[in-house]
Formats: sequence, structure tokens, C-alpha cells
Amino acid sequence: MTYCVGLLVEDGIVFMSDTRTNAGIDNISTVTKMKTFEVPGERFLCLLSAGNLATTQSAISLLEERALAPAERRPSILTQPSMFQTARLVGETLKEAIAFTAQSGQQADSVFSGTFILGGQIKGGKPCLFMIYPEGNFIEAGPDNPFFQIGEHKYGRPIIVRTYDPQMSLEDVSKLLLVSFDSTVKSNLSVGLPFDLQIYEAGSLRPGHRQRFEERDPYYQTISQGWSESLKAAFDRLPPFVPKTPDDEPAGPLRLIG
Amino acid sequence: MTYCVGLLVEDGIVFMSDTRTNAGIDNISTVTKMKTFEVPGERFLCLLSAGNLATTQSAISLLEERALAPAERRPSILTQPSMFQTARLVGETLKEAIAFTAQSGQQADSVFSGTFILGGQIKGGKPCLFMIYPEGNFIEAGPDNPFFQIGEHKYGRPIIVRTYDPQMSLEDVSKLLLVSFDSTVKSNLSVGLPFDLQIYEAGSLRPGHRQRFEERDPYYQTISQGWSESLKAAFDRLPPFVPKTPDDEPAGPLRLIG
Repeated sequence: MTYCVGLLVEDGIVFMSDTRTNAGIDNISTVTKMKTFEVPGERFLCLLSAGNLATTQSAISLLEERALAPAERRPSILTQPSMFQTARLVGETLKEAIAFTAQSGQQADSVFSGTFILGGQIKGGKPCLFMIYPEGNFIEAGPDNPFFQIGEHKYGRPIIVRTYDPQMSLEDVSKLLLVSFDSTVKSNLSVGLPFDLQIYEAGSLRPGHRQRFEERDPYYQTISQGWSESLKAAFDRLPPFVPKTPDDEPAGPLRLIG
Repeated sequence: MTYCVGLLVEDGIVFMSDTRTNAGIDNISTVTKMKTFEVPGERFLCLLSAGNLATTQSAISLLEERALAPAERRPSILTQPSMFQTARLVGETLKEAIAFTAQSGQQADSVFSGTFILGGQIKGGKPCLFMIYPEGNFIEAGPDNPFFQIGEHKYGRPIIVRTYDPQMSLEDVSKLLLVSFDSTVKSNLSVGLPFDLQIYEAGSLRPGHRQRFEERDPYYQTISQGWSESLKAAFDRLPPFVPKTPDDEPAGPLRLIG
């Protein structure tokens, strides 16, 4: 499995992805699921991927035009006029990569599936964030749905839903995503450290801060331990539950309730 | 979908279940998924169910011996010598109920599946908590795995994992489960209010406090709103993220990272 999040705020976009990939429970590796493309001053793009690794890597290779000699490459992903067109290209390429494997005669199509989160900005446009489906179509983030998660998204969702604010700073969003990722790894073996973080500052048209959080990273350790304590303290501050009337239901022999 | 939790602490067991059931997204009803059986002073049992409602209701009807005339019923679930035997009976009955539907010629076996959480105590034994699978087998809770969740379990898991303590009072466990359920309904439409709560006090051999939390319940409202604020406050207290060196990676034209 995987866990990736892209979150759009007024100040820009923050991307985070885990690095665990597995073929069965006994075959685990570390691989980045975050890929950035850029022409500084003109555009910045970040792709997060979930699903079959061969499929998503194949789609990225196609986007990079790795079929061409290095000197001849001018990846089409870097020449689209708009983020919308870029998302369309990524969607088509993903669909192509899935179809390539599906045509090979294997039956388990879903196993070869993949999903992308694409975010970034092209000069003249505003920062955009898309979720791109295996069918090649996509949806865009907006004020009502400011973030996308792919992979093992459920554990880490409540904290984002409750804490998100469009005016958050990019540093606070990074902290929030770290908490969300930490909650996920504490509950699910299929998501694992290290985590990759990429910050994009609106209007900069170049990559912002990028960092890999290893298990031993001091800030990650602080967040992970501090969050357990903060959460317990927050829980303790909630008013206690007092059963209204302890015996408001009469007991009888062989009572079947409900 | 569904969300049910049974949690074992030194003081007893707390059960909570949601009440949403649906056949498709446009056909939603409210039904309790919590069933208690008791012979006061001798035994107390609580069953939580997830999965196909026809299957779990059928299994419960079989356990209640509804095939017999009311006067002749002496449900075998109330005559087992131990919690282990009770779990075995529930498992066998569940398997039987699933097999009955599967035999009808329908192919989508998994759709007719179901899972139970069984907890309670029989005189002479200690409080026990089991997770009972559609195959009829089951596992028991212990110090290492003190709680079971069935249904839509991922959203509400991190808060339990982080906050659980075997010495918690039954009231605190009730509060914890309310937070866990609230986090779940905030993220997933397939889990819904009202919630049913059943407390069992170790050694009492009779039902403890039972309560249904409706949306407008004042305590639920306090928890739901208070938790959002507490969580934000807890998040704010975590140390801020400070990117180590904003420009530790040189930028170049067409840089492909990762």
C-alpha cells in the first residue's frame, strides 16, 4: 500500500508521500513515490503515485520520454500550456501504461492499476492540484475539497479534516501532514518511513523546501512522541462521561435488548 | 458499512456500535447492531455485528431460537458453560447463516458475509472479548490486543491506539469510543448516528449502563465540538516545523528529482 497527500492552501501546496512498497507482506522495499519536474521561473510540477509500482513508474518514464536518447528529450509534461492540459497528459499516459500491461494477457487488471496526485503551477496560471484516476480522468481541488489522499488514506484523514484551514502556513501544513502520516504508520504496516516532503510556494515557479524524514529524524521524533502526549492531554480535557441514570432500564431474567 | 468496537479494560468491557445500514448509497436505514443476552447474576453477553444485515440478523434469530414457540425457547447461547463455548456456538451459527444464503444459488458469497464481536462474562470465569469471523473461527482479546473493531475501522483507530490504557475507567473508555466514532462519522457517510453504548462492569454479571446517543445528545455535542477544538489546540502546541536549509538543493533547468 501507500499513503500520499497533496494539500492546497492560499500560500501554496504541500506534498508528502511514504516510501514503502511491497509485493506481498514478506517482500518490502523503499522507493520514492514523489517525482518533481521543473523549469525554474516557468513551471513546477509534483507527481505523487499510488498503486502498482511498475505501472506508475512506466507512466513516469513515458512522461520523461525515456524512450528517446537523453539529448533528444524534451518531455511533453514540461511543454503543456496549462495545468489542466498537464493533468490531461498525465491521465492519458497513465491510462496508456495500464492498458499496456492489461493487454499482455494477464487477467487481474486491478492489480496493474495506479493513481496520481498532480500539483504545481505554470506561469500565468494559479497553483492547481489534481487527482488523476486510472481511467485517465481527473478532478481538481478547490475550497470545498482542498486536499487529495491516495493509498491508505483513512487513518490519517480525521486529523486533516479537523485541523485544515486555508490560511495555514506551509510550515504548519507540513507539520499537519507529518501528524497524519505518523497516525497512519502507527496503525498500518503497509505504510512506512521514510517520508518525502515537498513544499511549493505559490507564485515561486520553482521547488520549495524538500526533505526526507527518516525514522530517527529529530523533528519527526518530537512530533510522533509529542502528538501522543498532546492527544492524551486533549482527551483528558474533554468533559467526563457521566452515565445519566445507571439503572434506567429494569433487569429481568432472559431479557433480549435491541 | 458499519462501525463497532468492543474494548476490554481491567474494570470491564465497553461496547459501542453505530446504527447505519444501507443497500446502496440511496437506501439508508437505522438499525441497532448491538444485541445483549443475560441471566442476571449468572451471565451477560453482548454481540456487535457487521456485514450483511440479513445474515447477522438470521444468525441472531437462530441464537435466540426464534424457530421455536416463545414458551419453548431456552436459547442455547444462554446455557454454554464458558465464554469460549459461547464464542464457538456464535461462530458455528454465523457460519450456518452464511451457508444458508450461499446455498441459494447466488454467486456473490462475500456479500452475504458477516462478523461479530462477542463480549461478556459467565459466573466463575473472567470477562472475555472475541472477534468472530465469517468462517466461524475466532480470536480473543488480551493485553496485547485489548480491543476489536469491525466495519469501517480505520478512521477511528489512531485515537484508540494512542489513548488506550488498561487502567482506564469505564466512563473514560466510553468517552474514548465516542471520540473514535465521531472521527469516523466526520469522514465517512456509511457510518451514522445514533450510536449505541453498552457498559459491562467486570464481575457484575448483569448489564451496566446502556445509552443511545442521538445527534442532538448534549454530551455528544460537547465531545464532538470540544474534540475539534482540543485537537487544534494539541496541534498548535506541537513545535513548529522549520525547514532546515531552504536552499540545500541547487536548482537547475529540467531537474528530475526522486
